[in-house]
Amino acid sequence: MAGDAVEPTSDRAAQIVFSTDRDIDLYELEELCDAVGWSRRPLRKVRKAIQHSFLVVSMWEQRGTKRRLVGFSRATSDHAFNATIWDVVVHPDYQSQGLGKALMKHMIKKLRSEDISNITLFADPHVVDFYRRLGFMSDPEGIKGMFWYPD
Amino acid sequence: MAGDAVEPTSDRAAQIVFSTDRDIDLYELEELCDAVGWSRRPLRKVRKAIQHSFLVVSMWEQRGTKRRLVGFSRATSDHAFNATIWDVVVHPDYQSQGLGKALMKHMIKKLRSEDISNITLFADPHVVDFYRRLGFMSDPEGIKGMFWYPD
Repeated sequence: MAGDAVEPTSDRAAQIVFSTDRDIDLYELEELCDAVGWSRRPLRKVRKAIQHSFLVVSMWEQRGTKRRLVGFSRATSDHAFNATIWDVVVHPDYQSQGLGKALMKHMIKKLRSEDISNITLFADPHVVDFYRRLGFMSDPEGIKGMFWYPD
Repeated sequence: MAGDAVEPTSDRAAQIVFSTDRDIDLYELEELCDAVGWSRRPLRKVRKAIQHSFLVVSMWEQRGTKRRLVGFSRATSDHAFNATIWDVVVHPDYQSQGLGKALMKHMIKKLRSEDISNITLFADPHVVDFYRRLGFMSDPEGIKGMFWYPD
């Protein structure tokens, strides 16, 4: 795993490490998503989605040679103008420590380094303020996020 | 051009044809976007965005062997769960004839045929009702579309 950023934590033996490696253990990712109560999704579709995302960032707690997946996020993109961030998750044991913020800042930095200027997402009501504090605006100039679902 | 759907128009000599071919004349596309008053974008970025879109649908008026680009849309996607529709444009001369609706229905049909169930977009205020009539919902369950722009 090529860790490309490190955040010290309060425990001196543990470090938070970010990675853009897509070769993630899907069972470990499923466990993380289970921990926050997400509905299970077919692993073959999760694998395909990761393969075809423009950016995948995972967040790990590393203690010596051991590591644990504690956060994840990915973005789709046209590689030119826009990116849309999906599946932002931080393990409940690691929430309220600024790690969600660090994960999102890492996503934004990576997308900006690829010259993507329009970064979008769809936020559940309880995280709108979290994203607002990171500089995201809801409905700028009256633009509405809209969804189409099959009947 | 492999036209994959045809809509008859009132003029018996003209047909509306849809295509998913990405090999679009970028100057012709720029002319279409100019006609609706969009800001110009670097063609090399437009080319890259088209290459990396999951789906590109162009709409043509065909008269005999002559054709004119009258509409365009594209979608980014993770190829598994979600797609986001961008750059929906219909030439002003061809608006108010149901062609925008036909273009969007074509997009949705194509995305559904690829098993994409979560189709999203960001709608300017004046087209929110247009998308609503097509079955799109704004802010379902309080989900907010959010944007991050560089300073």
